[in-house]
Amino acid sequence: MTIDAFVFDAYGTLYDVQSVSQITKEEFPEHGDLITQVWRLKQLEYTWLRSLMSRYRSFWEITEESLIYTLDAVGVESTKAVRDRIMDKYLHLNPYHDSISALDALAGVPRAILSNGNQEILDALVRNTGLEGKLESVISIDKGGVFKPHGDAYALVEKTLDVKPQNTVFVSSNAFDACAAKNYGFQVAWIERVTREALATEIAAADTVGPSTMFKLLRMQMENFGMEPDHRLKSLDDLASLGRARDHERSPNGNAPVA
Amino acid sequence: MTIDAFVFDAYGTLYDVQSVSQITKEEFPEHGDLITQVWRLKQLEYTWLRSLMSRYRSFWEITEESLIYTLDAVGVESTKAVRDRIMDKYLHLNPYHDSISALDALAGVPRAILSNGNQEILDALVRNTGLEGKLESVISIDKGGVFKPHGDAYALVEKTLDVKPQNTVFVSSNAFDACAAKNYGFQVAWIERVTREALATEIAAADTVGPSTMFKLLRMQMENFGMEPDHRLKSLDDLASLGRARDHERSPNGNAPVA
Repeated sequence: MTIDAFVFDAYGTLYDVQSVSQITKEEFPEHGDLITQVWRLKQLEYTWLRSLMSRYRSFWEITEESLIYTLDAVGVESTKAVRDRIMDKYLHLNPYHDSISALDALAGVPRAILSNGNQEILDALVRNTGLEGKLESVISIDKGGVFKPHGDAYALVEKTLDVKPQNTVFVSSNAFDACAAKNYGFQVAWIERVTREALATEIAAADTVGPSTMFKLLRMQMENFGMEPDHRLKSLDDLASLGRARDHERSPNGNAPVA
Repeated sequence: MTIDAFVFDAYGTLYDVQSVSQITKEEFPEHGDLITQVWRLKQLEYTWLRSLMSRYRSFWEITEESLIYTLDAVGVESTKAVRDRIMDKYLHLNPYHDSISALDALAGVPRAILSNGNQEILDALVRNTGLEGKLESVISIDKGGVFKPHGDAYALVEKTLDVKPQNTVFVSSNAFDACAAKNYGFQVAWIERVTREALATEIAAADTVGPSTMFKLLRMQMENFGMEPDHRLKSLDDLASLGRARDHERSPNGNAPVA
């Protein structure tokens, strides 16, 4: 099996969506973490529910809808200026510590993003964070009008890059995304950012399980769909070794190339 | 506008899904509430994600998949006998305090359930809880092979009962379900079991917002889709007054009938 492309999920995989808490905590010191977690959970829910209802809206609109929901439900007042400031962080999310090094190490094989984000906000995010020269393509599901995990979203990879799913490594930290990509036919690497052991320790140490732990429980553990990713990696940096292992398999005399 | 049928959601509307905590707390005294909340959240997620992936499984299977996910993620050991005992509660959920009185008050107009549950477990639940004689029909989305909020699930009402959506009152406490039913074309009554004010008080009183409050934040507040239900009611008992209001509208001389 060859690897013709590495395709990355953006939010939660290359970019830390939790970094919005820098702003939510400034604006709402008492409820910053709660708002951060509920907002992200509802944002994903809304992509799923709108897809099922055939009532598509862009990710930017859904991000705003879910933010307004969250602030109302938590019971805090907000002005449009405050909401705009929080939303703006989605154009400047922090890349994870391993995003840039991992992309650099994979140079030579086409590298792409496939994301729920609409094209305009993805392009701005990639540009604002210095990842522009490290990606050959940035694909938005906006073209298909339906969010992940619908198959039409994943099909955009083959259409855009002209690569077969079985020759593409799809990389995601979002377990539902990794499972759905496997179900679709990609080679899949799931980035396990919170191990089960670390989560168990966090739960045991808590008097009350709070919003941040709840988020890890709901979103950062492998799903139980019977669709197992091919690889569980602790870091994006481990992707380079997959590339080398594949080179090894392709080598006609079975010798590993010199690293 | 006439009312030709009242159609009820089951889980969370006629039946209290939180009543599974009677069993989860017996089996896992330390984590009963956490397991109850994560399980219900994942169960719903799995109905959405499997529908989007076109990988349908019955609600009973999804209920088991999501229970196993939850126990693993929370980090507790379980035997099949323990899981079976917890699952069995889904066949004996507690009806809400107002379910039976509300159904009795609506006798004379066809009353039905439209639920994600598969036929076998819905029939068992209705039978085990004494609601059998109070419902003219129990409709499972299993027939359509896709869960709510997909339109094909709601379309089963018209197919089964031969009533038009605009002449049908759809009743749900699940806000996503109420919004989707409105989007589909029903008259919709949302039962607001947790007011925004009560939730704000609960959040303000908590040192750490725990799993049960998190559930209310995520699942028991009106969604922000721009699809507003026709009626927000505090109790299922308030449905009878809708029936009377409609009688009034239909009355040729405009007089309200004697109550």
